[in-house]
Amino acid sequence: MNAQQIVLNARPEGMPSKSDFSMIDAELPAIKAGEFLVKNLWMSVDPYMRGRMIDRESYIAPFALGEVLEGGAIGEIIESNHADFPVGAKVNSMNGWRSHYITDGRDHTLLPQTPLCESHFLGVLGMPGMTAWTGLNRIAELKQGETLFVSAASGAVGSVVCQLGLLMGAKVIASVGSDEKAEALSAMGVEQVINYKTTANLSAALSAAAPQGVDVYFENVGGEHLAAALDNMNDHGRIAVCGMISQYNDTAPTQGPSNLAYIIMKKLKIEGFIVSEHWQHYGEFSQQMGQWLASGQVKAEQTIYEGLEQAPAAFIGLFEGKNRGKMVVKLA
Amino acid sequence: MNAQQIVLNARPEGMPSKSDFSMIDAELPAIKAGEFLVKNLWMSVDPYMRGRMIDRESYIAPFALGEVLEGGAIGEIIESNHADFPVGAKVNSMNGWRSHYITDGRDHTLLPQTPLCESHFLGVLGMPGMTAWTGLNRIAELKQGETLFVSAASGAVGSVVCQLGLLMGAKVIASVGSDEKAEALSAMGVEQVINYKTTANLSAALSAAAPQGVDVYFENVGGEHLAAALDNMNDHGRIAVCGMISQYNDTAPTQGPSNLAYIIMKKLKIEGFIVSEHWQHYGEFSQQMGQWLASGQVKAEQTIYEGLEQAPAAFIGLFEGKNRGKMVVKLA
Repeated sequence: MNAQQIVLNARPEGMPSKSDFSMIDAELPAIKAGEFLVKNLWMSVDPYMRGRMIDRESYIAPFALGEVLEGGAIGEIIESNHADFPVGAKVNSMNGWRSHYITDGRDHTLLPQTPLCESHFLGVLGMPGMTAWTGLNRIAELKQGETLFVSAASGAVGSVVCQLGLLMGAKVIASVGSDEKAEALSAMGVEQVINYKTTANLSAALSAAAPQGVDVYFENVGGEHLAAALDNMNDHGRIAVCGMISQYNDTAPTQGPSNLAYIIMKKLKIEGFIVSEHWQHYGEFSQQMGQWLASGQVKAEQTIYEGLEQAPAAFIGLFEGKNRGKMVVKLA
Repeated sequence: MNAQQIVLNARPEGMPSKSDFSMIDAELPAIKAGEFLVKNLWMSVDPYMRGRMIDRESYIAPFALGEVLEGGAIGEIIESNHADFPVGAKVNSMNGWRSHYITDGRDHTLLPQTPLCESHFLGVLGMPGMTAWTGLNRIAELKQGETLFVSAASGAVGSVVCQLGLLMGAKVIASVGSDEKAEALSAMGVEQVINYKTTANLSAALSAAAPQGVDVYFENVGGEHLAAALDNMNDHGRIAVCGMISQYNDTAPTQGPSNLAYIIMKKLKIEGFIVSEHWQHYGEFSQQMGQWLASGQVKAEQTIYEGLEQAPAAFIGLFEGKNRGKMVVKLA
């Protein structure tokens, strides 16, 4: 059968453009013993993928030019020669950016029965949600009554960080890039939301929003946001460093904040993390998150682009602030 | 009786100059009941004092203009109306920058009997030594077989960090600012020493010295040294942030490293600390350090300026790289 795939055409310079991607057709053979055929229903686009488009050593291998891209996906099994993966079952994999594929099931997990839309296993119940939970609980160790500052706060990770912060009894201060996003967070119960794009002095705005100082900063952005956080951190504050999206498309080195000496003066702890290294706690996370979703204590927001051909636009949209909540592409 | 005191004349702009300090005479009254009179023998000058010369909020109050400065000192009791502090005993205090003073003994500790020069209680057995020990053991948790990078490695803290690193079974790589300092560290057994002042590319030099990467960076300098460390850190590396002396005299903000995204990619932990918050472990430290000094496993280097009037020059010398080991002023 025929499958559509999106391959990396060229390594992006700066902001990715649609010409960095190509959609190609690939003929799939018949499935062999122990294999099954998957039709993808949803695929994920995530900021970390930008790093894999650069040819460099990192915690994850770079994408190869001319090869089909990879990323989180939810698919339905439509043919099977594998007893553990029957036709009709839905699977979570890293085989996104393609309409169909054949696999032996390695690195595939069956989706549990759930009344939720399956796409949430790419978002609030998947990597981004687990990232939010890990950063707050295991890296920053947020405590009740503390003040939490979240950047990119309406993104896939940030929007969960805000909601978990509120559930954990923190005062939450969020930074976003549009008034519409700010309103959505306010409606969720976030007391103070800063639109950094209309704020002349982010550090002063954060100081006004958090006169009591910031205990935990959940870092998704870098640059000016990190500088503003450092200015406003309390003694023994913790910074969980999840991402620095403001820098992912830089073509020249961007200098860091000039106020790093606060690390000493305020005795700060700054820790980077990659959620995959904490995946052994996924069971605990998914049980808690499932309950919060069922009770409505956490709301799962997503922004949906339709059709595999829209995947590059969805990916580029991440860096243009086009998403509220998780950005996903509906493939079928 | 008459005491000499050094007061802060003006808040330094950039590199401190001698005119920022004045030496004045002060008449001391007779001691009252519960008081004693101390003649200072040694006083400490330390980089952190530069921060106290700035009028700002920090972990320690700024020095007041026209008031006598403060800092670590070792003195001898020459008159006493206090049963716990007899004449002839030696005391450790924060009452440096003066020849004599009267006190009720608050925040004073009696020096133990020791064959060592008392000045070492301002250095390897005092705050700087305890800082080195705390940073390696409690902040960075250096392990046997790991690679340790130390900046300002021949300073009061750095020279102890290097020696403790070797004792802990680490491979030690040091950065210093002169060939003479490099030779002294090599003689101590440090395998790789970089003279950063004659090195065109510090990151490349560190990479050549540590092809296996850096597990722990003991940060005393900031700026280019931090950038070079980030470039060369291994996954899950730890950075104990003790000081950023390269920035203490900055008159304009100095931008930070452009490679902070390595915090995420390498899952680094960066932690600032102030040794006073760890002082409850001083007993354990001083017992170990006393044994290492007695056995010759740690050598206590110091640079001595003579006379209270030389204290400003000694202090300024810290920022000019004039010291090897602990910089102290001999007052009597």
